[in-house]
Amino acid sequence: MLKGNAVVGQSGGPTAAINATLAGVIRGALEVDAIDTIYGAFNGVEGMLDGRICNLNELASDEVQLSLLANTPAAALGSCRKKLPAPDDESGAPVYEKLLAFFRKYNIRYFFYIGGNDSMDTVAKLTAWLDGGDWEMRVMGVPKTIDNDVAGTDHTPGFGSAAKYIAASMQEILRDTAVYTVKAVTIVEIMGRDAGWLTAAAALPGRICGISPDLVYLPERVFNFDKFYSDVSAALERKPNVVVAVSEGLRLADGSYVGESTQSGAVDVFGHRYLSGTGKTLELAVGGKLGVKHRSVELNILQRCASHLASKTDLDESVAVGRAAVRAAVNGESGKMMCFVRTSDSPYEVDIVSGDIAEIANRIRCVPDEFITPDGCGITDAGIEYLLPLIQGEPELVYENGLPKHFEIKRTNS
Amino acid sequence: MLKGNAVVGQSGGPTAAINATLAGVIRGALEVDAIDTIYGAFNGVEGMLDGRICNLNELASDEVQLSLLANTPAAALGSCRKKLPAPDDESGAPVYEKLLAFFRKYNIRYFFYIGGNDSMDTVAKLTAWLDGGDWEMRVMGVPKTIDNDVAGTDHTPGFGSAAKYIAASMQEILRDTAVYTVKAVTIVEIMGRDAGWLTAAAALPGRICGISPDLVYLPERVFNFDKFYSDVSAALERKPNVVVAVSEGLRLADGSYVGESTQSGAVDVFGHRYLSGTGKTLELAVGGKLGVKHRSVELNILQRCASHLASKTDLDESVAVGRAAVRAAVNGESGKMMCFVRTSDSPYEVDIVSGDIAEIANRIRCVPDEFITPDGCGITDAGIEYLLPLIQGEPELVYENGLPKHFEIKRTNS
Repeated sequence: MLKGNAVVGQSGGPTAAINATLAGVIRGALEVDAIDTIYGAFNGVEGMLDGRICNLNELASDEVQLSLLANTPAAALGSCRKKLPAPDDESGAPVYEKLLAFFRKYNIRYFFYIGGNDSMDTVAKLTAWLDGGDWEMRVMGVPKTIDNDVAGTDHTPGFGSAAKYIAASMQEILRDTAVYTVKAVTIVEIMGRDAGWLTAAAALPGRICGISPDLVYLPERVFNFDKFYSDVSAALERKPNVVVAVSEGLRLADGSYVGESTQSGAVDVFGHRYLSGTGKTLELAVGGKLGVKHRSVELNILQRCASHLASKTDLDESVAVGRAAVRAAVNGESGKMMCFVRTSDSPYEVDIVSGDIAEIANRIRCVPDEFITPDGCGITDAGIEYLLPLIQGEPELVYENGLPKHFEIKRTNS
Repeated sequence: MLKGNAVVGQSGGPTAAINATLAGVIRGALEVDAIDTIYGAFNGVEGMLDGRICNLNELASDEVQLSLLANTPAAALGSCRKKLPAPDDESGAPVYEKLLAFFRKYNIRYFFYIGGNDSMDTVAKLTAWLDGGDWEMRVMGVPKTIDNDVAGTDHTPGFGSAAKYIAASMQEILRDTAVYTVKAVTIVEIMGRDAGWLTAAAALPGRICGISPDLVYLPERVFNFDKFYSDVSAALERKPNVVVAVSEGLRLADGSYVGESTQSGAVDVFGHRYLSGTGKTLELAVGGKLGVKHRSVELNILQRCASHLASKTDLDESVAVGRAAVRAAVNGESGKMMCFVRTSDSPYEVDIVSGDIAEIANRIRCVPDEFITPDGCGITDAGIEYLLPLIQGEPELVYENGLPKHFEIKRTNS
């Protein structure tokens, strides 16, 4: 058994579940004999390079703290977007040497990196650089992303909570927009640059309570303004209040983003790309072309940090995948990413396995054709069946003075 | 005792608590001998004019249904923005005659109108028109508005829930934006065209958990771009991630809205008023002037319909004020609005009283000077003491298949 200490870091965009995975890694590390001390690196690899670390055995050692940590949004250790140089690039060697010095100084034999594609890239490169050297250690990646677009896993930790927030907010928006009798169109913009998983979740209220956005557009389908006007007009014939869910990543046939579009007369006042957003663009297009009341709502970063409306299924799985990463590493695995394999939809069951990062990295997993209705603006039953188990359950939140209580890792011993 | 039937309607913008008040009116009506049937008018006065009503004795007669209704956002009966003509305007007489015919047909002796300033205007006008006629009836207004800007009451039903959502979302946004080490400014735009009550609520996390937006700007203070740049720059000296809460209703010295502003070089690409928003304008101004990463988040309609994060204090009070309106009317009052009088901050206690609508209507209640820090960009302890009790408590929500369960009043018998 490889004995020593471990370090865990977080990287990439925040989610409501990334701290649940951190809690899982801490719990896993405290459970195994192979690991003495579990250190936390502030701001991921940045903190390992700067020596900004903390001792997590002390900071998060009891159930109450670990439970609060699991219900705290964003990255408790801070995050980074640092990419490591290619391992075979001589000029990049100093960065790796510095990391190695850090590992030696603290006798780090296990490194767990919780993050998105960039983090998996770091795991792959570090594994390659260490290979054949004299410092034996295990490096494991634990995925997180609300976008759910990572290959090799049924879904990603963090997605279920974001999907639950989106579905619940959509349900509330549908109630809100239904109160007037005047014709109006509401566009709701949802995150997802390349894949429409999150936007698909906006369709969930239809199955659960019978109210649903009228139209759902994913980036997996080329967006066409004429079809859009036609779809919206048809919906307005059926009811006065039309609600449309759109992915931020919608693109036109020429590959440009809808948010950059200047094709519609109503949106050609945008002089700068940063002014536009997909929802705002489509809202103004509707107003200009159809002449009805219009509004757009951008769920923005709220959808990735709303711990107060997290999915218990997601949080429990996020803890479990962190613990599983520790067990896999102690059992000798390295350079791997932990993945979910769904073994059953009903009852919903998943296994946690490790996958080879090299085969997983840099591939975007899109919403499959069978989840999108033939008209290109709806989600099929198969899609709903896939999504539904992921938003189930509500964590028991601790409220203090009216607000959910969070766990904060102080930077005192950094 | 005036015996007969009652009608209740909802009007104005949705809130998370307007259905709690509806549940209170229904409960109150079922409790008193004076009222046989409580009808619901769909889309407020519109439904009374069109005969679109429902029998609420049947639709919402048990505790389970009334409890679900109280936890359902937006107006279950639908809303309207209809204003009645002046009672002394001859040309408007047909509208009143039509309402009177409706009252006679259904033997309506009690009318409860839940809404904002427009609804109170309707109550005042209808009371005046009925005065001296041969149809005896009682008309009562029950205020609701997330904006909290109604005079004559300590606060308005609906405000506490919106404030809790804003405070909780701000807490999550503060965690989310704190994860990186790169300098960045996040502007959070909060509703409030004339008064800054909702924006002030964004400061609550500072008292509760020690993290707070760095700057808070209310419409009660003239906005000045130079001071803003100076405030933000100073904040960026202290920490990398600066979060600013702003009211949508911020105005410059010339009275124009910041969201329409073309004074800053960074924002002069806006050609149309509908393109701008206060948050977006200030975000782009920060990017242009200070050259740091920037983002804006508009809480939008989510802040008024987020029943999943409602304040139990607000919902309980909203039910209570609906019941109190029924009791007051049965006791002979008419042409009144129900108000809260705070009798103690700690422990928090309120009395419900009726106030004369004529003295209340058309006055905006702004955030008082003693709640705003002298530098104009923060909330004082006194302000926090006022706000804190209003967000306390969490209702017991019923979840079904992952989403909060709502109560829907079907339009079948309309």
